[in-house]
Amino acid sequence: MTSPTAATRRFQVWAPTPETVRLQLDDTVHPMQRSSNGWWHADVDCSPTSRYGFLLDDADKALPDPRSPRQPDGVHELSQVFDIDPTLWTDASWTGRQLPGSSIYELHIGTFTDEGTFDAAITKLDHLVDLGVTFVEIMPVNGFNGVHNWGYDGVLWYTVHEAYGGPEGLQRLVDACHGRGIGVVLDVVYNHLGPSGNYLERFGPYMTEGANSWGQAINYADADSGEVRRYALDNALRWFSEFHIDALRLDAVHAIVDHTAVHLLEQLSIETRTLSAHLGRPLTLIAESDLNDPSLITARSGGGYGLDAQWDDDIHHAIHAAVSGERQGYYGDFGSLQGLANTLRQGFFHAGTYSSFRGRIHGRPLDTRRIPASSLVTYTTTHDQVGNRAIGDRPGFYLSPGQLAIKAALVLTSPYTPMLFMGEEWGASTPFQFFTSHPEPELGKATAEGRKAEFAEHGWDKSDIPDPQDPETFTRSKLNWSELGDGDHARLLALYRDLLRLRRDRTELTDPWLDHVKVDYDEDAKWIVVRRSRLSVVCNLSESAVTVPVGGSPLLEWEPTTSDETGSTTTVPGHSVVVLES
Amino acid sequence: MTSPTAATRRFQVWAPTPETVRLQLDDTVHPMQRSSNGWWHADVDCSPTSRYGFLLDDADKALPDPRSPRQPDGVHELSQVFDIDPTLWTDASWTGRQLPGSSIYELHIGTFTDEGTFDAAITKLDHLVDLGVTFVEIMPVNGFNGVHNWGYDGVLWYTVHEAYGGPEGLQRLVDACHGRGIGVVLDVVYNHLGPSGNYLERFGPYMTEGANSWGQAINYADADSGEVRRYALDNALRWFSEFHIDALRLDAVHAIVDHTAVHLLEQLSIETRTLSAHLGRPLTLIAESDLNDPSLITARSGGGYGLDAQWDDDIHHAIHAAVSGERQGYYGDFGSLQGLANTLRQGFFHAGTYSSFRGRIHGRPLDTRRIPASSLVTYTTTHDQVGNRAIGDRPGFYLSPGQLAIKAALVLTSPYTPMLFMGEEWGASTPFQFFTSHPEPELGKATAEGRKAEFAEHGWDKSDIPDPQDPETFTRSKLNWSELGDGDHARLLALYRDLLRLRRDRTELTDPWLDHVKVDYDEDAKWIVVRRSRLSVVCNLSESAVTVPVGGSPLLEWEPTTSDETGSTTTVPGHSVVVLES
Repeated sequence: MTSPTAATRRFQVWAPTPETVRLQLDDTVHPMQRSSNGWWHADVDCSPTSRYGFLLDDADKALPDPRSPRQPDGVHELSQVFDIDPTLWTDASWTGRQLPGSSIYELHIGTFTDEGTFDAAITKLDHLVDLGVTFVEIMPVNGFNGVHNWGYDGVLWYTVHEAYGGPEGLQRLVDACHGRGIGVVLDVVYNHLGPSGNYLERFGPYMTEGANSWGQAINYADADSGEVRRYALDNALRWFSEFHIDALRLDAVHAIVDHTAVHLLEQLSIETRTLSAHLGRPLTLIAESDLNDPSLITARSGGGYGLDAQWDDDIHHAIHAAVSGERQGYYGDFGSLQGLANTLRQGFFHAGTYSSFRGRIHGRPLDTRRIPASSLVTYTTTHDQVGNRAIGDRPGFYLSPGQLAIKAALVLTSPYTPMLFMGEEWGASTPFQFFTSHPEPELGKATAEGRKAEFAEHGWDKSDIPDPQDPETFTRSKLNWSELGDGDHARLLALYRDLLRLRRDRTELTDPWLDHVKVDYDEDAKWIVVRRSRLSVVCNLSESAVTVPVGGSPLLEWEPTTSDETGSTTTVPGHSVVVLES
Repeated sequence: MTSPTAATRRFQVWAPTPETVRLQLDDTVHPMQRSSNGWWHADVDCSPTSRYGFLLDDADKALPDPRSPRQPDGVHELSQVFDIDPTLWTDASWTGRQLPGSSIYELHIGTFTDEGTFDAAITKLDHLVDLGVTFVEIMPVNGFNGVHNWGYDGVLWYTVHEAYGGPEGLQRLVDACHGRGIGVVLDVVYNHLGPSGNYLERFGPYMTEGANSWGQAINYADADSGEVRRYALDNALRWFSEFHIDALRLDAVHAIVDHTAVHLLEQLSIETRTLSAHLGRPLTLIAESDLNDPSLITARSGGGYGLDAQWDDDIHHAIHAAVSGERQGYYGDFGSLQGLANTLRQGFFHAGTYSSFRGRIHGRPLDTRRIPASSLVTYTTTHDQVGNRAIGDRPGFYLSPGQLAIKAALVLTSPYTPMLFMGEEWGASTPFQFFTSHPEPELGKATAEGRKAEFAEHGWDKSDIPDPQDPETFTRSKLNWSELGDGDHARLLALYRDLLRLRRDRTELTDPWLDHVKVDYDEDAKWIVVRRSRLSVVCNLSESAVTVPVGGSPLLEWEPTTSDETGSTTTVPGHSVVVLES
């Protein structure tokens, strides 16, 4: 929206479907003019906080603006006029932060702090600086129905959830991050819309045939998809330009259906490069992808989409299955040290190989000499790998501290871009469960029953599954910051700090070229050694001590290790890890 | 060099050629031990400012260290122990600056200020901030023979010329730049060594068969080239890590002879990415290349070398020849508006087409949809385009102010990465001439006579060519900072500031995708219009007013323009430029 004069504002909306569109502004209804391209506009005087909406045809209830910047009363009610106040920024000297060499900290605003707000999150940033991460990644903050939600039920992509502090709160958090040298990744969802508050189809052909796991497919490729594509593209670019966001995490891009010659993601890559040149700072695109397709992270001059990075679940699964022994569901093909070694060396486990979980050949090999490993984001866990378990139990609920240390060391010494999930650094005792707060009773009931039924199929007793609609499920998922100085929590936190410090200090660890990574292992004795030039990360996955044929001085160890008199072997206690320098 | 203990330092040198190598340290000679790989070392106590050198076989004069960090008495004398003091840095919050969206200011330390030092350059940084550039590019500062030199006669690549302020002065300048948000490009030369002070061949097989225009070829690809490659690679990486440099400008890469499977430039690209991940900030590689080969700036995942950018002389030549009418030498194929239009749209003029200057087909087309134009550095002039003219005359010596304005507008509104040469922003009245100060009389004489003979071939009177060895030639080339507030100088400076401001404000201008650039022209009427979305850069290259079929509101104009009553044409005075918004 632009303001032709100080007092007058242009209200506009793309609405090719209705015959007429009227603007409701506070208590007054104004006619709107239609252009040939399906856009309607009206230039009207308003206050800086006027409420407004659009009356389609003869409707008597105004719908919120699909591009609403603010929804003070929730996703079903009137929008509010809002502009970011550019004078509030204090990050004029911020020249951005690049992804290579960075480490990310994923957090959910509602449960990161007791208050569950952007402002409360600011008070924890010094903890993140001490920890040594360089990006925070914020789970979706777009407008969704209800108060508590992971964020993936968003329906008004341009708004910022009011309970978190609204757009002004997000602005303050980003500004505070930049002031501490921390970049901000925002999680955005372009593959579906939430189950309540999606009025887009009344405006135009936003939706199309077909559906994915989370909802109706979005019309990115069929007739009249041009403006729908712009709806997503403009949204992405707005976070960068208006909110000073440094990177976007694009949710589940495999569920974006686009068979046109220039895929939505490639178009986003093109336009993001343009904006990056305008803003003069790196803007990073990170896909959550289940495709194991190197095209996503191949440069456009190499025929790829030109995204900067993608999440790599294979590495998570390979580490988690090997350390934990879990084999259920998608862990089926994982668990061997051979598989872990191959995945650590090649980035993908399934690289043109059979995936039993999918029942088909999956993936394609990466060119490990030319695609930097920093283009793959890896983690010991994520919101999904915790919250999509039946009871939202973190790895620390069923693994020993030493096993957590092994997972952390494998991720934080890897050539990949490491990401932590909030609280993992101290082995938080709080779960992260699936929670919703749909105000509509039927939707709430369907969500809760669907969740319970899903896990009942895997043998769970429904009564053991937390009710996502129960406010306690949300409250229980909040971090308990009072525990991080205690015993095992403090010991794990110290390890995380030490690992991140070692990662900064030793160039071998962030070396992104996978052809430099060597891995040895003994499947029976359950040890694995990742060699990075003169550094060796020695992990003992068994419960008993093992002696590995690797020598060197310990730079960092979970439990004390011993070496033989020739210095050519190291004995590592059960469930422990040591980083040796030769 | 590492310090095994506080008082002891390891001195080491790669010297496979001599039978014995001894260390001269201050007044004492120490034996050195040879390793199988041709490296010699000695662990010896020394002071932080000890002088040292290497005695090869039975020589009685010690040679400077090929990797000398400091040469207080010139390139023929003893080296000095030196380490950067890391506590002097104040740029801890610097997260780097990316090239896309940037503008570069090329300068020569010796002539940028009266004092000719890094510290004096610091006093001019606020001028550069006001001007609006975001990088300074420093002509070579490595150790060369004599006091005054452009810098391309370097022989000790690891040193910093003492007369400029030495390594500590460079550290202060980089730190001061970062404090003002300015990144630093350093010009480095890996294609030849200077004519005096190159003792490398006495140590090992640094040189090989063949030569380029400036000297003997360096052994990057023949037997025992491994350590020679490391000599260049380690030098490049050292500027980034120890001197906090942000980008390197690699001089004349077409003269680097390397037919191995991994070209030196690709290896540098690989190692620079590794270091960039370690340092957590963008490190940029910019080649000076005369190849018009897109491989240099194609991503490694696209099979290219993965450099970030290259200089683009074609754009300079196309603009300069069209505006100035000059056709001598390499301007021969240039001059038409058709050629200018094609070059502005395609990046290269010679893209698989015949170059009459070279007498052969030259270049290869860029993929203009996939290679961002920010990967091409363009300019109205450079140190070469001024200083390699017979009398070092800047464009302002023979063009009207309006013609300078046209050149500036074409470069500063272009999708390419613009670069200025010091003083161009105010049309400096001082020349930039070719100067040397070889202390050896014969070398000095040969240099001066060679220079005069070269231009005599093109019809110049030898007596008109400035003597490069005359100290006045150097002094005459210093900028005169007292003139920039005067008349035409001030008017041009205001235009440059306005153009750089417009470039920052309008995203259309830095849009790096060449397939978005449209160009219209009239060869006879001598106008050309570059269209960037809603902006049109309208240039009148003729001396008389022209009316062009383009309307819009002037955002910036050199001379007042008028439009007709329908707003569909604009009349532009002779030698003038206007940026219109439609």
